[in-house]
Amino acid sequence: MDDYKNIREEAFEANLEIPKRNLAIYTWGNVSAFDPGKGVFAIKPSGVAYDKLAPSSMVVVDLEGKTVFGTLNPSSDTETHRILYREFSSGASSALRGITHTHSPYATSWAQARKPVPVFGTTHADYGAEPIPCTAYLSEEAVKNNYERETGNLIVETFRLENRDPLRMPMVLVAGHGPFTWGKNAAEAVYHAAVLEEICKIGCFTTLLNPGAEPLPSHIIRKHWERKHGSGASYGQRKS
Amino acid sequence: MDDYKNIREEAFEANLEIPKRNLAIYTWGNVSAFDPGKGVFAIKPSGVAYDKLAPSSMVVVDLEGKTVFGTLNPSSDTETHRILYREFSSGASSALRGITHTHSPYATSWAQARKPVPVFGTTHADYGAEPIPCTAYLSEEAVKNNYERETGNLIVETFRLENRDPLRMPMVLVAGHGPFTWGKNAAEAVYHAAVLEEICKIGCFTTLLNPGAEPLPSHIIRKHWERKHGSGASYGQRKS
Amino acid sequence: MDDYKNIREEAFEANLEIPKRNLAIYTWGNVSAFDPGKGVFAIKPSGVAYDKLAPSSMVVVDLEGKTVFGTLNPSSDTETHRILYREFSSGASSALRGITHTHSPYATSWAQARKPVPVFGTTHADYGAEPIPCTAYLSEEAVKNNYERETGNLIVETFRLENRDPLRMPMVLVAGHGPFTWGKNAAEAVYHAAVLEEICKIGCFTTLLNPGAEPLPSHIIRKHWERKHGSGASYGQRKS
Amino acid sequence: MDDYKNIREEAFEANLEIPKRNLAIYTWGNVSAFDPGKGVFAIKPSGVAYDKLAPSSMVVVDLEGKTVFGTLNPSSDTETHRILYREFSSGASSALRGITHTHSPYATSWAQARKPVPVFGTTHADYGAEPIPCTAYLSEEAVKNNYERETGNLIVETFRLENRDPLRMPMVLVAGHGPFTWGKNAAEAVYHAAVLEEICKIGCFTTLLNPGAEPLPSHIIRKHWERKHGSGASYGQRKS
Repeated sequence: MDDYKNIREEAFEANLEIPKRNLAIYTWGNVSAFDPGKGVFAIKPSGVAYDKLAPSSMVVVDLEGKTVFGTLNPSSDTETHRILYREFSSGASSALRGITHTHSPYATSWAQARKPVPVFGTTHADYGAEPIPCTAYLSEEAVKNNYERETGNLIVETFRLENRDPLRMPMVLVAGHGPFTWGKNAAEAVYHAAVLEEICKIGCFTTLLNPGAEPLPSHIIRKHWERKHGSGASYGQRKS
Repeated sequence: MDDYKNIREEAFEANLEIPKRNLAIYTWGNVSAFDPGKGVFAIKPSGVAYDKLAPSSMVVVDLEGKTVFGTLNPSSDTETHRILYREFSSGASSALRGITHTHSPYATSWAQARKPVPVFGTTHADYGAEPIPCTAYLSEEAVKNNYERETGNLIVETFRLENRDPLRMPMVLVAGHGPFTWGKNAAEAVYHAAVLEEICKIGCFTTLLNPGAEPLPSHIIRKHWERKHGSGASYGQRKS
Repeated sequence: MDDYKNIREEAFEANLEIPKRNLAIYTWGNVSAFDPGKGVFAIKPSGVAYDKLAPSSMVVVDLEGKTVFGTLNPSSDTETHRILYREFSSGASSALRGITHTHSPYATSWAQARKPVPVFGTTHADYGAEPIPCTAYLSEEAVKNNYERETGNLIVETFRLENRDPLRMPMVLVAGHGPFTWGKNAAEAVYHAAVLEEICKIGCFTTLLNPGAEPLPSHIIRKHWERKHGSGASYGQRKS
Repeated sequence: MDDYKNIREEAFEANLEIPKRNLAIYTWGNVSAFDPGKGVFAIKPSGVAYDKLAPSSMVVVDLEGKTVFGTLNPSSDTETHRILYREFSSGASSALRGITHTHSPYATSWAQARKPVPVFGTTHADYGAEPIPCTAYLSEEAVKNNYERETGNLIVETFRLENRDPLRMPMVLVAGHGPFTWGKNAAEAVYHAAVLEEICKIGCFTTLLNPGAEPLPSHIIRKHWERKHGSGASYGQRKS
C-alpha cells in the first residue's frame, strides 16, 4: 500500500513556512511536493487554516488531475500546480519537485503593477540572472475554458515565448494575481517565495528612491549567479 | 431571562482579533454581533483596552439605540453600527450579522486620500467584484445633527446611490475617517477588516510601482468572485 | 526623606513603552515624569538600554537643571524637557506632567521632510484640531549657546508664534530631528508618541496615494476633537 | 595552543543579532571579529543558518586569507572583510575590530538606487557627519579578477577618493549590492548595521514626503556628531 507519506510530510512542513515567513494571511497560499517517479503531488487542502493542517490532510493528485489520496478538496490552484509539474518537470530525474503560490504583499504589488522585476541588485542575481517575468492577462476564452489550468498554461507559454529555463528562473508573477515559485523540493519552493517577496520589497523602495533605477551591469549579474549556481559555485558548504 | 450570551461571546471573541491581526493600536477599533431575531447587537464598550475585555463587558443595544444589557458606555461608533444593521439587515433571516470599524493604517490611508480602491487584482476580486467604495465627506448639517448616526446614513446612501448590494461588497471607506466592514457574523466582519487592510496595502505599493495601474479585466474579476461566491463556488471544503 | 519614588516609577514604566510600542531602536527615546508641586522631573538616564532600567536608575532633575536624585547622567535631552516643563507647565495644578522624545521612523520622516502634518483625517482630529507643527531649524548661534536648551526654546517659540496651546496640541516635530510629545502624565506622553507615529504613518501613505490630499473639513475636525476633549465629551467611560 | 576563543565567541554573538534585529532573512548577512594583534578574524561560515551556529563553527582567517581555525567554508564575503581589515585597521591598536554585511531591505534599496544617503537629520548625524557613501559599480575586469576582494578594494578606494576616514563614517553602500558597516568590535559593527537600516528607512519616507528634502545645516550636523564623538562628548554614562 502506498500512502505517499514522504511528499505529504514534505508538503505539510513547507505549508507551515507560509505563515512563519509572513507570506500570506489566513489561507492565501499553498505549497505542493512532487514525486516525479510516481507522477503525483501532495498539496494543501482548499481553505483550511495552516494551524489546522496535518500531514494526513494533504491531498495527493496525479498528473491527470485525479485525487489518489485524501478526502478533502485540494487547493483551488491545484490545476495550475499540475500543469507546471507536467510541463516543467519531466521524468523521474526532474529537478522541479515543489511549487508555491502566495499573495505576499510586495510580490503581489509587482504582479498588479504588471511589471517584470528588473535585476536591480545582487540579492536578485543570486537567484536568477534575468528579470522575474510577469505574464500577460488571461484571455476571456482561457478564463471560460478552465481558469486554473489556463493559468498554468499561461506561465508555461510566458517561459517559452521568452525562451526561459524554469530551472534558472524559479519565480514568476501572474499579472493581476500574484507569484508562483518552485524548486527542487517543496522547502526550496517556499524558500523562493520568501526570497521573491524580499526582492520585490527592496525593488519597491528602490523605485521610490530612484524611479529611473537601472539594472545591474551584466558582468556583476553573471558573477553572482555563477557564484551560487555555476559549475564552480563557491557559496555554502561542500556537500559530502 | 435573556442575557444575550451568544452575541456577547461572539462580539468578545471578534474584538480580540483586532489587536491579534494588528488592525488597531490601543482602542482604535470595535466589532459588534447582531441577533436579527431579537433586533439587538452586542458591541465593545467605549475606550476599554482589548486585554481588559470580557464577554460580560460587551454592551447590548437594540435597534432604537437603547442599551438593554450592560453598565458600560457602548462604543462611540454604536449609532453607526445601529443604522447599518437597521438598513442593511432586515428580518430574522438577514445575512448581515457582524460589523467592524478600525483605523488600520493602509485602509485609513485610502480613506484619507478619498479614493475608492480599484479592483487591481484577484486578491480583491475574491471578496468583491467592484471597487471598494469611498463615501463623500459628511455635510456640516449632518455633523451637527448626529455625527455617528449620519455616518451610518452616509454609508447607506453611498451604497444606494451607486446601486450596490452590501452583501456583495462587505467593505466601505468613510472619507477622511476609516473603514467599516461587515459579514455574516462578527468573526467574518473582522476577517473582512483584515482582508481590506491587506488589499489596501497591496494597492498602495501597486500605486507606487505603477501610478497608472489599471484594474483587472472584468472577465477575470467575475471568475474570481464566482469561484468563491457564485452558485457553483469551488473554493474551500464542502459543507456537510 | 524624599526620594521622588512616584515620578521615578511613573517614568520607569513609561520608558518601557518605548520598545514595547516600537517607538525607538536601542536607546533612541526617553520619557520623563514631572511633579509640578516639587518642581522636579524624573527622566531616563543617558544611553542605558531599556531592559537595564529600574525605577532606581531614573534621574531626578529640578527646574534649574540640577540633579537632585540619582548617580547616572540624565538623558542628553534633559534640557529640552526642562524648558518645556518650565514654559508649558506652571503651578502645582499644571496639566502637563509627562514628556516623551523618540526617533520613531514615520514621525522622524515628517520632521526630516520639514512638513507640519495636515489634519488628513479623524485619527488626527481625535488628538488635535490643528496640523502637528514642525519647527524651523535651530540657528547657528542657538546651537553654539546650548543646543538642547535651545531646542526647548525653539518648541516654545513655535507654539507662541503660531498662537498654539500645548494642552490642545500635545505633539511637535523638531525640524531635521524628531518628535516631542507630552501629556497629563508620563503614560499619556508616551501614548501620544505612539499615536503620533501612527498618524504620521497613515499620513505618509495618504501622500503616496494622493499627493494633493486635502485636510478634513473644519466641521468634522471640530466634531472629533470635541467628542474626545470638549465639555460634552462622549468617548470612553464615565470617570467615577 | 591558540584557538582564538575570544573572537570566535564575539563573532558568534554578533551574528545572532542579525536575525534578532531583522537585518537579513535566511543566511543573508555575516559578521566578523578581528584581533589586530594576531592579524586574524573570526567570521560566520558560508550558508549556515543563524540558529545552527555555535562559537565553534566560526571560521578564523588570517590577513593573507588562509583559514587558521575551523573546518567549514568561511562566508563568501570573507575576502571583502579581509581587505577592509588590512586597509582600514593597522597595528595592534587599531580601532576597527568588527565588520558586518547584510542585505537589510532599506539599506539595500539605497544601494540599488545608487544614491549616497544625505544627512537628512540628527539620527544620521549622531553616527556620521557626512552622507553615507555609495560606491560605483565594480568594473568587468575587477569582477573577473576576484569579485569579493575587489569589492573590498572598491570600498577602500571610495573612501580614499572622497578623502574619508572610516573611523568617522562606519557605513558604506556597495552599488547594486548592499551595506557594509564596521566598528570597534563585532557588536558595534552589527549595531551600526541596524542603525544604518533605520536611517535608510527614515530617509526613504523622507524622500516620499519631500522629494526635494535638503540635508541638515552643517552647524546642527557638527553639534550632533560632537555630542556623541567629540573630545567633550556628553552622551551616555562616564566610563570608569
